[in-house]
Amino acid sequence: MNNDIKDTVMIGAGPAALTAAVYTTREDIDTTLYEKLTIGGLAAITDKVDNYPGFPDGIEGLTLADQLQKQAERFGAKIEFGDVTVLTTDGDVKVLTVDGQPVRARTVLIATGSDYKKLGIPGEAEYYGRGVHYCATCDGAFYRDKRLVVVGGGNSALQETIFLTRFASHIDLLVRSTIKASEVLEHDLQPYIDSGKVTVHLGVTTDEITAQADQTMVVKATQDTKPVTFETDGIFVFIGLIPNTQFLAGSGIELDQVGLVNTNEHLETNLPGVFAAGDVRHGATMQIASAVGEGATAALAIREYLDELKRQ
Amino acid sequence: MNNDIKDTVMIGAGPAALTAAVYTTREDIDTTLYEKLTIGGLAAITDKVDNYPGFPDGIEGLTLADQLQKQAERFGAKIEFGDVTVLTTDGDVKVLTVDGQPVRARTVLIATGSDYKKLGIPGEAEYYGRGVHYCATCDGAFYRDKRLVVVGGGNSALQETIFLTRFASHIDLLVRSTIKASEVLEHDLQPYIDSGKVTVHLGVTTDEITAQADQTMVVKATQDTKPVTFETDGIFVFIGLIPNTQFLAGSGIELDQVGLVNTNEHLETNLPGVFAAGDVRHGATMQIASAVGEGATAALAIREYLDELKRQ
Repeated sequence: MNNDIKDTVMIGAGPAALTAAVYTTREDIDTTLYEKLTIGGLAAITDKVDNYPGFPDGIEGLTLADQLQKQAERFGAKIEFGDVTVLTTDGDVKVLTVDGQPVRARTVLIATGSDYKKLGIPGEAEYYGRGVHYCATCDGAFYRDKRLVVVGGGNSALQETIFLTRFASHIDLLVRSTIKASEVLEHDLQPYIDSGKVTVHLGVTTDEITAQADQTMVVKATQDTKPVTFETDGIFVFIGLIPNTQFLAGSGIELDQVGLVNTNEHLETNLPGVFAAGDVRHGATMQIASAVGEGATAALAIREYLDELKRQ
Repeated sequence: MNNDIKDTVMIGAGPAALTAAVYTTREDIDTTLYEKLTIGGLAAITDKVDNYPGFPDGIEGLTLADQLQKQAERFGAKIEFGDVTVLTTDGDVKVLTVDGQPVRARTVLIATGSDYKKLGIPGEAEYYGRGVHYCATCDGAFYRDKRLVVVGGGNSALQETIFLTRFASHIDLLVRSTIKASEVLEHDLQPYIDSGKVTVHLGVTTDEITAQADQTMVVKATQDTKPVTFETDGIFVFIGLIPNTQFLAGSGIELDQVGLVNTNEHLETNLPGVFAAGDVRHGATMQIASAVGEGATAALAIREYLDELKRQ
């Protein structure tokens, strides 16, 4: 067992953690990031990022992720692949289990993000970011005067459908069973249905996403056991969000009802020395700009916590 | 009098407002920014920005400001020069006085930032960002193993001096009269004084900043009526912050004790429809990354507020 205690460990290596690492390492705080899957997080698998400030013509998600990584590494951040499965404490020290091995740290930043729930159908992964989307704020504006298909029937599906009406020429809303959203949202959607801008299709199971040679997307689906198809320019899927916080079960860290981490204004959780930033945090906007801002704020709080420790 | 009511008006055109404008205009929300002085705010007058995420080798402040402006304008933001002197309300409508003329808006983003208090001595402006600094988190790391002069004697001066010891080889702390800081901070500073890393000079008035041909900076000062000089590599001035909120006097908007705007977790002030983001907000970190994050978050809250208005 390694008895060394690291100054700070960050779980995840998306924009929030990479930004925090730029700040901590630039101040000579020894910093290790553990990433399970993709350095750069959701940003890395986004085709084009149009609204991250500083890039007037947009930037490829992978390029941005790469630049964030380079910047953190330039100041000395150690980025390792590793799966964190347990977070517990030993007095003031936080103890993580990383790939089965214990890692001890004075401070921890939880920045594991959230994932969009997927339909799990053929073509969905293939056209991700190039026709298939999960974030209307991020990608809606690419579909000015275009046709869209929205999949989902809950609050977020209705809310984002209403939002997308400001761009799309027409929206087919595919609902698996019936609409399960608040009355307010149903009421707000009604005028768009009345005007013909939105067409609601109930009892529709989506089966496959394909693209034609002219880049028109086709959603193959089943309605009342009959096959149906929808031609469209893009598909937005809003069937839920999965915060990556399963590993916090038993940690004593307070989550909200959907599993996002609760924090105070310094982005500290209920466990002193453990912070959270980005899409995993309650209040997250699923925006790179916000994640980056929270990463910087969390890093300053981590520095302050470590300084406080030294004084004791 | 112009009776048109704008959807959203942003006061200031620094990173927070420019980011918010990228978001609102990208969603076709009519957006006007009024800037009194410098588009890009403090970022625009920063020599090199090393810790704004996405630029691994750093970026010139002016270049970053320019790119933020281009990005906001690309989506249709209107950036105008204008001095906002009054913010008041007429029912739900917010009424600004801009260069003496009334401007009406449904929502307002206060993003006027804060300014660092200046010494007001010769050479200070000339070497700003190239030897003279006001933010240790931003620029401290440029002074690894270098000599520094710190000017100030309050809490922030002591706190930042302690922080800068992690980079500097030696720090001369110039205090105008005596140290006026918390006992905790005085206690924390003591070991650095004992070890000779920090030398405190009391009763020192700084008079002028110059540079020698070899780039060594020289601080000319007066101590007990006698002229003294300090050779150094850089000067950090920590004598206070001035939030740009004087124009909010009489607006009813709640400020904290130093004049920063209080907001809730959606960055909304106590006046519905009026939001604040960036360095003008209570809790501000004086970091571009944080300002940008708050700009995005505020824009989403503005959208939601406007959608709510439409429903009524």
